[in-house]
Amino acid sequence: MDKIVALCKRRGFIFASSEIYGGVGSTYDYGHYGVLLKTNVKNEWWRAMLQERDDVVALDSAILQHPKVWEASGHLAGFSDPMVDCRVCKGRFRADHIEERDASLACPRKPSKLPGEGGECDLTEARDFNLMFETTVGPVKDSGSVAYLRPETAQGIFINFKNVLQFARKKPPFGIAQVGKSFRNEITPGNFIFRTREFEQMEMEFFCPPDEVDRFYQEWRDARFDWYVKLGIRPDHLRMRDHDADELSHYSSGTADVEYFFPIGWKELEGIANRGSFDLTQHASHSGEKLEYFDPQTKERYVPHVIEPAAGADRATLAFLVDAYEEEEVAEGDVRTVLKLHPRLAPVKVAVCPLVKKDGQPELAREIFTTLRGQMQAEYDEGGSIGKRYRRQDEIGTPWCVTVDHQTLEDRTVTLRDRDSLEQERVAIDDLPALLAGRLAAPWTTPKLG
Amino acid sequence: MDKIVALCKRRGFIFASSEIYGGVGSTYDYGHYGVLLKTNVKNEWWRAMLQERDDVVALDSAILQHPKVWEASGHLAGFSDPMVDCRVCKGRFRADHIEERDASLACPRKPSKLPGEGGECDLTEARDFNLMFETTVGPVKDSGSVAYLRPETAQGIFINFKNVLQFARKKPPFGIAQVGKSFRNEITPGNFIFRTREFEQMEMEFFCPPDEVDRFYQEWRDARFDWYVKLGIRPDHLRMRDHDADELSHYSSGTADVEYFFPIGWKELEGIANRGSFDLTQHASHSGEKLEYFDPQTKERYVPHVIEPAAGADRATLAFLVDAYEEEEVAEGDVRTVLKLHPRLAPVKVAVCPLVKKDGQPELAREIFTTLRGQMQAEYDEGGSIGKRYRRQDEIGTPWCVTVDHQTLEDRTVTLRDRDSLEQERVAIDDLPALLAGRLAAPWTTPKLG
Repeated sequence: MDKIVALCKRRGFIFASSEIYGGVGSTYDYGHYGVLLKTNVKNEWWRAMLQERDDVVALDSAILQHPKVWEASGHLAGFSDPMVDCRVCKGRFRADHIEERDASLACPRKPSKLPGEGGECDLTEARDFNLMFETTVGPVKDSGSVAYLRPETAQGIFINFKNVLQFARKKPPFGIAQVGKSFRNEITPGNFIFRTREFEQMEMEFFCPPDEVDRFYQEWRDARFDWYVKLGIRPDHLRMRDHDADELSHYSSGTADVEYFFPIGWKELEGIANRGSFDLTQHASHSGEKLEYFDPQTKERYVPHVIEPAAGADRATLAFLVDAYEEEEVAEGDVRTVLKLHPRLAPVKVAVCPLVKKDGQPELAREIFTTLRGQMQAEYDEGGSIGKRYRRQDEIGTPWCVTVDHQTLEDRTVTLRDRDSLEQERVAIDDLPALLAGRLAAPWTTPKLG
Repeated sequence: MDKIVALCKRRGFIFASSEIYGGVGSTYDYGHYGVLLKTNVKNEWWRAMLQERDDVVALDSAILQHPKVWEASGHLAGFSDPMVDCRVCKGRFRADHIEERDASLACPRKPSKLPGEGGECDLTEARDFNLMFETTVGPVKDSGSVAYLRPETAQGIFINFKNVLQFARKKPPFGIAQVGKSFRNEITPGNFIFRTREFEQMEMEFFCPPDEVDRFYQEWRDARFDWYVKLGIRPDHLRMRDHDADELSHYSSGTADVEYFFPIGWKELEGIANRGSFDLTQHASHSGEKLEYFDPQTKERYVPHVIEPAAGADRATLAFLVDAYEEEEVAEGDVRTVLKLHPRLAPVKVAVCPLVKKDGQPELAREIFTTLRGQMQAEYDEGGSIGKRYRRQDEIGTPWCVTVDHQTLEDRTVTLRDRDSLEQERVAIDDLPALLAGRLAAPWTTPKLG
């Protein structure tokens, strides 16, 4: 993981946030390549939801919603971690993590009773600590003006169910998809962008007739697992883990996690839950609105059941980075660092390089670059030796490098270097746009190391 | 404006947020077509920043930053509106808006002194009210855990200046661009999505040598004005307004607003400001970091000056909607509502319709739809008469409708209807993808009504 963090900083993917002010714990800013990579991850999610099917619509609901939303959803009462306080140092810790962190239980303010031994914290009983960030809206701070930063995007979907039914001409089975920031005041965030207080979710709620819910649960489990595989994650680094009965929410008849083998172990990438009719029923009873569907054909009225695939955009980005990272010995003693990202995820698709900075090569390379960048994210790179430039492009995961050399000026052909095979082929300039577009659209099957 | 709001609700572009709970003032949720439209607006901004030039890089910084960021930027001390309180009803109002709202000065809690006359509010002196939303981070609520929701994305750029300089291999002149949510606890939000407490910004900070700043100020003023024109806004509904000397921030030597003629009058769409070296200098002095550039060629060390084009994504979306909206008499007494959106902004590019729901037409239409949707946002539409479907597509701004009819089954040609000219041409199915791709890439010059 340290190698990933170092590469992310060195190549401007991801920086610790507010770094010049000493940082704020576990918050990150995405630099140029990080923005491009994460945007590609989100775009591929949208493609799978909107473009490759036609039963899902998009939504972008507000972060600051009516406080009753969180009353109905159960977050106000139950979205909490058990916390213990130390009566001496005033520190606050997660009760369920105390055993894991024995080493730091030495109370920083308690004088040691025996020389050489630190006193332990004097802990209170565990109390619940709500994980929602609180703020006040409007000019007057009183109980009526309290608002919460949403801890998940899902509730914004449920409260818009009726709008979509009425104005988007949809009937079950259909889904509503949303990508956006959520906030959780985690006590112990950490592991780089794996768990942060501010994060981006990709959630979809699929509303279906109650008697079809099992079929769609299976369909979405498979679809979401396959999405990661198609985008290049090694299948043996992925697993589907069904929740045990005691892990399940009281309203869920089935939940499964897509887990990835991170450097910190098997961790959740995405949860697929059968939420039944719980959410719509809750919002119906708290709002007084009927949140149900009347089928004009069967004359039946029912509350749709919901399948929810909920993924984290930052976490998925991290998994794609980790899985793509390789240190490869290309010749004896010569190791290159390469990100074998799926070409559709790669921040930059093609770099255009003049072999030398003279003889008209830069001008011609710029010309090719200008043509290609209208079509895909391209980069013009003339700094340093060509070998150094290739290695830099390998590190940011650029699948193809186009090099203009002496021969180019004679016959308008360039070399096209492949990031994974390291092969170089000779291609006519005029054929480049169609050739690269075709490779970008093709399935990607490069083998990675085990 | 009422017509726009009604259309946005009717067609599922934009809904009042938390509507089933009675709403929260001036907060909106984007429905399917709204998400697609606003995403296109943001993508066109990115295209102008990243794809059409190569001196700008992307950034996505956190919403919750270190509190010192807002101390350095001046927001903590100075980002406020003057407010007055009523000693009787406890209401709070913007002091500079009091004269505009005479009518509501009747104090709701003050008993009238004379029958038939409402008492007026008993107002305090004006005091400053900070517009930043406040929250606390971490488990303990104390002064050390206060954080603010960013009121602008720009500061996240300044605090990453050094990272970009170091790791993105950029040297002035270069820009850092960012799109993201910002939050302002406005006392009087309103006018639909024109002014909301939660909104999305598109900001770019362009760092340049001090002696080139005037040239870049002019370049960016022109570029940003032209961006709106190229995307179809009537030039006579746009104007550039230079700030008067007394409007300018003390550090700015020039600021101009791109204004649009909204139904509520001429209002700011985007500001282009020459911010000098103010921001980098402030952050340097508050953080102790050197935020400057050393030019290895000239051996000069300097603090770059900054040109900032700052636009609102919601506001721009509203302007594009307003400008595109037309009620057009297509025959005597027959009026259609149409959104003449630039094809690249239109939520759906093409709708594929079978003329009738039989004779194999739906199957063939679905086949065409499946081909086209891989390439662009497409919709399959078989509900209602063909005339009604065309009108529906007009209302959401779909530039082209493809209709499968009896002849299609014989010669594999379809009719292609143009939203603006209403002309229908006969086109071979196989030619559709290339034809539509070409039209989507071409400049757009449809005349709108005056």
